[in-house]
Amino acid sequence: MAIDAEKLLNWPSKDVEQIYTKRDTMLYALGLGFGSEPTNEGELNYVYEEKLLAVPTMAVVLGSPGFWLRDPETGVDWKRVLHGEQWLEIMQPIPAEGAVIGRTKVTDILDKGPDKGAIIYSSREIVDKASGEPLARVSMSTFCRGDGGFGGKPGPAPSPHPIPETAPDLTCDLSTQPQAALIYRLSGDYNPLHADPKVAQAAGFPRPILHGLATYGCAARAVLKACCDYDPSRLRSLSVRFSAPVFPGESLRIEMWRETGGVAFRARVNERDSIVMTNGFAGLE
Amino acid sequence: MAIDAEKLLNWPSKDVEQIYTKRDTMLYALGLGFGSEPTNEGELNYVYEEKLLAVPTMAVVLGSPGFWLRDPETGVDWKRVLHGEQWLEIMQPIPAEGAVIGRTKVTDILDKGPDKGAIIYSSREIVDKASGEPLARVSMSTFCRGDGGFGGKPGPAPSPHPIPETAPDLTCDLSTQPQAALIYRLSGDYNPLHADPKVAQAAGFPRPILHGLATYGCAARAVLKACCDYDPSRLRSLSVRFSAPVFPGESLRIEMWRETGGVAFRARVNERDSIVMTNGFAGLE
Repeated sequence: MAIDAEKLLNWPSKDVEQIYTKRDTMLYALGLGFGSEPTNEGELNYVYEEKLLAVPTMAVVLGSPGFWLRDPETGVDWKRVLHGEQWLEIMQPIPAEGAVIGRTKVTDILDKGPDKGAIIYSSREIVDKASGEPLARVSMSTFCRGDGGFGGKPGPAPSPHPIPETAPDLTCDLSTQPQAALIYRLSGDYNPLHADPKVAQAAGFPRPILHGLATYGCAARAVLKACCDYDPSRLRSLSVRFSAPVFPGESLRIEMWRETGGVAFRARVNERDSIVMTNGFAGLE
Repeated sequence: MAIDAEKLLNWPSKDVEQIYTKRDTMLYALGLGFGSEPTNEGELNYVYEEKLLAVPTMAVVLGSPGFWLRDPETGVDWKRVLHGEQWLEIMQPIPAEGAVIGRTKVTDILDKGPDKGAIIYSSREIVDKASGEPLARVSMSTFCRGDGGFGGKPGPAPSPHPIPETAPDLTCDLSTQPQAALIYRLSGDYNPLHADPKVAQAAGFPRPILHGLATYGCAARAVLKACCDYDPSRLRSLSVRFSAPVFPGESLRIEMWRETGGVAFRARVNERDSIVMTNGFAGLE
């Protein structure tokens, strides 16, 4: 069944209301490895309630509609989708606890042809329930490998942020913990691909892989550490393209280049010298 | 102010009702390091919702009255108390999710003299709210170093379980994770001693220490692994005396001796060759 672009562009997503506590906020940060370096006191405020701060990328788990492409009505071959790119704009610091409303829209659909697939772009506005003020906009592209050739336009697509060919200005090494995916999934993405060896093997992986958005949060951790002195209000946007999976327990090297308004970045797994995220840009104040 | 044994023995503890979810049950197990060995599938059912099992020692965090000795009305010098011993009897497997009621009583108080202190014994019955059936009995002794000499009896105290002088029949090495205390505390014991370096230093430790009951849960993990093929219904009781602190990230060696009805055990930190728990006994079926 071919996908119907008009139908998807008018997909009736419901508002998703979410109440979250300080415990949820600490648990999100623990899933990214905050607090795993005992002598790093800059991370303590993200995992300890006394002066708790939310990691800005926690927005990606707030007010989420879940894996709505799995709904048969979308016509999408959901088993063949991949998370392509992720964008985040922060309008106001994410509160350490609160109630939010997420409103998701499909914003564009491209047809890269029957051999390549379709790309669905969606965007979610996250609003503070009490004030009605927007907190963040979370956007993503989903690469639907089984759904190309539906008769749509092939472009234009957003341009990936270029990565310089020079040596990076800054690097940050972060180890992921063996339990990282098991902790991260308690923030809401319970896809068994990240926990169950049988499911991972059926999907072609030797063992469960880390959530792309957990790796994404690790990039935020690196930028907060290397560029922001751990002040979350300085991180205003974060965009990236996912290029390869990470296995829990592997160590990441985040390479950063200073640019006007922020840093370009990419991340590699040290053990396999594999680039796992690229075309990254963190907007800083 | 001297403590009043009669008053403490009649302390009016309220019933503590607690609703807990599968997410809470997985989070408790993650705090003990379950799931940190990617190739150990025996641990998966404790951290993954598909066929979720509760670690039997999760009873110690259910229906808890919290740190009630901190109430000034108790007369206890709470800053000088230490967790001495822990006992647990399991009547029925702890459900993976549910609602329970905890009912705590002070059962005995000993006076070891003004130089040594007092020992307060308390016990909590945990009942399944829906059925009214008892699930577990959680008991502990608290060594109150500042409260001896109140005019009480010096004994008798429960006999510690003897540890053989022979080589252990079984050993199990478990690494604790650097984030272990930060994860474990989300199960309810938010004492800052386990998170805040300043609080830990004020208490005489170079950095935050692991919760004694997290080390206790690691002992259960070792027994489940070495003696029970990870079947939680086989672990029926677990008693131990705490003898030294553990720092998150250290590795534990649990030494076990087969005995009638179970295994005697103790635990040491490999890095410091320090015995951290001793006089342990796990009752097995």
